[in-house]
Amino acid sequence: MSPTLRINAERLNSTLQSTCTQWGALSAPSTGMCRLTLSKEDKETRDWLVDECKALGCQVKIDQMGNIFAIRAGSAKDRLPIGMGSHMDTQPAGGRYDGILGVQAALEVLRTLHENKIETNCPIALIDWTNEEGARFPGAMMASGVWSTKSSTPLEACWATQDKEGTLMKDALQEIGYLGDTSCDYKENGLECHFELHIEQGPLLEKEGKAVGVVTAVQGMKWYAIRVDGVEGHSGTTPMPERSDALVTASRLITAVRDTALKTGLGFATVGVINSDTASQATIPAGVDFIIDIRCSTDEFVDQLATRILKAFDSIIEEEKNGTTYKIKRTWGLPESKFHPRCIDTVREVALQEVGEDQVMDMRSNAGHDSAWTSRVCPTSMIFVPSKDGISHNPNEYTSPEHCALGAQIMLQSVLSYDERVGKGEY
Amino acid sequence: MSPTLRINAERLNSTLQSTCTQWGALSAPSTGMCRLTLSKEDKETRDWLVDECKALGCQVKIDQMGNIFAIRAGSAKDRLPIGMGSHMDTQPAGGRYDGILGVQAALEVLRTLHENKIETNCPIALIDWTNEEGARFPGAMMASGVWSTKSSTPLEACWATQDKEGTLMKDALQEIGYLGDTSCDYKENGLECHFELHIEQGPLLEKEGKAVGVVTAVQGMKWYAIRVDGVEGHSGTTPMPERSDALVTASRLITAVRDTALKTGLGFATVGVINSDTASQATIPAGVDFIIDIRCSTDEFVDQLATRILKAFDSIIEEEKNGTTYKIKRTWGLPESKFHPRCIDTVREVALQEVGEDQVMDMRSNAGHDSAWTSRVCPTSMIFVPSKDGISHNPNEYTSPEHCALGAQIMLQSVLSYDERVGKGEY
Repeated sequence: MSPTLRINAERLNSTLQSTCTQWGALSAPSTGMCRLTLSKEDKETRDWLVDECKALGCQVKIDQMGNIFAIRAGSAKDRLPIGMGSHMDTQPAGGRYDGILGVQAALEVLRTLHENKIETNCPIALIDWTNEEGARFPGAMMASGVWSTKSSTPLEACWATQDKEGTLMKDALQEIGYLGDTSCDYKENGLECHFELHIEQGPLLEKEGKAVGVVTAVQGMKWYAIRVDGVEGHSGTTPMPERSDALVTASRLITAVRDTALKTGLGFATVGVINSDTASQATIPAGVDFIIDIRCSTDEFVDQLATRILKAFDSIIEEEKNGTTYKIKRTWGLPESKFHPRCIDTVREVALQEVGEDQVMDMRSNAGHDSAWTSRVCPTSMIFVPSKDGISHNPNEYTSPEHCALGAQIMLQSVLSYDERVGKGEY
Repeated sequence: MSPTLRINAERLNSTLQSTCTQWGALSAPSTGMCRLTLSKEDKETRDWLVDECKALGCQVKIDQMGNIFAIRAGSAKDRLPIGMGSHMDTQPAGGRYDGILGVQAALEVLRTLHENKIETNCPIALIDWTNEEGARFPGAMMASGVWSTKSSTPLEACWATQDKEGTLMKDALQEIGYLGDTSCDYKENGLECHFELHIEQGPLLEKEGKAVGVVTAVQGMKWYAIRVDGVEGHSGTTPMPERSDALVTASRLITAVRDTALKTGLGFATVGVINSDTASQATIPAGVDFIIDIRCSTDEFVDQLATRILKAFDSIIEEEKNGTTYKIKRTWGLPESKFHPRCIDTVREVALQEVGEDQVMDMRSNAGHDSAWTSRVCPTSMIFVPSKDGISHNPNEYTSPEHCALGAQIMLQSVLSYDERVGKGEY
């Protein structure tokens, strides 16, 4: 470990801001982003990133899901790369830090190693994971899922997912030139370990007055697609008591999702997406679709909360007695993840050295991350830096340049510390 | 009046079914229709109708809103035509009778007059009113609105309405060849009176065991566009009690719309259309739009029900205390309409003669109709025939061939009866 080696904070922040302005910025004065995965903006950012990494002497591999692995060689030829991964895609109205900071910080680490001619034992890899957001192609953390657990996230199924325009993911990959040859499988293109710097996306660090979160786990999540069926009818002639109005029932169910999460305190439950079959103001809706997103600290809590919500649904259907019914379908899930003590300890040690005990806390992540998947197949942990007002998935998302730089510095030192132990034969 | 003159029931029903099958039918086995106004299917139906009417010797005028006036000459050159109007456009998933029956019956009346070489005093006009449904271009009963009351439904504003693809109504009219030269104004292209045969679209005739409804009035209606604003956030990190979730608030408001209509018994209140800003399952929705459709027997009841609903909204916003807010905008309205005693009496007399007292009842219309507009500028009434199970705006909409024919027969005799009185100088 080289305790005096420091990343270039100004370079990190100006690169982050300028690339965001260039590719996917929402209209000023908003500093929001719309850089949907595999879009033109995403392609341009990827092309730039690949060029930058190649200029630093990295070997760049693109895998079958478009994941970018930019690998700086190490001296120990028999070791896998130490990974620094995150994502550069955003929500349709997201911010400049969610995911983007992690990849930019990884690039800054590579730049720092390069200009200081640091020789590491392990290769060091920057990874840009494809479609973390799941905002264009449904299925968040999709490509890290394929890489880590093909059995639960099959490659062919992911290729076959469609965006709203009906474009297949495989075609979208091909179209922007990122349908690579490298196997999207940790067994064939593996990592020694995986570190990820990310914004917290919640209010805890700010509330506690801390600068760094040492992430020990990621909460479990499940998505459920709900379909409510009723009977279409004319809004001016169907008597109020005789209606089988799918939207009224759906409205009561959506309210119950929130109320049940609030009341039980088991975790988070959110309905983000709703669609009614009807496009006419004069028609009683016959069908409504919505998706419930449930997240709790443990998988058991996720299942408990889901059970409680469905019980509330059944009471409402029983109470309405209006002929409406609902169907439920599990669409996506991410089991709870416990990070690896080696990686957790490395990040904690480095953070304590960098800013001292007052500024550091252990925490779990309430949002899903690519690291949740990588943790299943290689030692993993994450570094969190504060989000202003806890806001994320929103154009107002903000993390100060100082905190961005601090995160990148801890990433650099964590990678070097882990590498040193590998060199010593400890890991 | 020629009491023995009868329409051809078989011709009416086979023409109705075959033209529906040909232009705008949903996939079998559904007998539903999607014949959106000014679509390719609408154009083809219009072209066919114009040809049929010309073959019967009618003069066909197309006005600035695409309304088709097919006029069979009368002997009294100083009188305006007796109108038989309705519409041939449908909801996106509508049926074969709403509107369509009225135009097909008018055609059957023209055919019957023609083949029996009947000479009337007044000219007799079939009218196909454009965009009655308001399903493609927002604003139901649009073109009869322009014709009747330019002050409240201005021509230029209607031309400027856009469909979901952003097509201007004026361009759509031009594209299918129905942007006519005739002034869309009753003052320049007027009618002696207006009769409309329509399916009831409600359950009352069936419930009462009646075959014919003599329509005396149309209830008042108003539409309100509601916008709920909250704060976007991450579904996994924003604490449940700190959320400003626009969709949860909208859900409670939508439930309140239904509950208030039920509780007060003032009339109908429906939310048919809902749109959330968010397309991501992992995002707390920041904004939701929906439209409330309120219909009551009088304008006063409409306003009372709207006031009660908004009061309920305010209580919910107060109770939630989650920072969400709502805005309201009046988008469309149709004041209550009272039909003309002359036309009401004509229809009642004819119906009583045709099927006797047991089968006839006076009623008001709970749905809006082109006749609601024409009644403002010329004597108007409507003939209702039963809707199976009261279902309409639904592919399962159904009216028996016998009831369709009965309606057309009453239309024929009503027109002849009115015309006879004109001839006698009574009207």
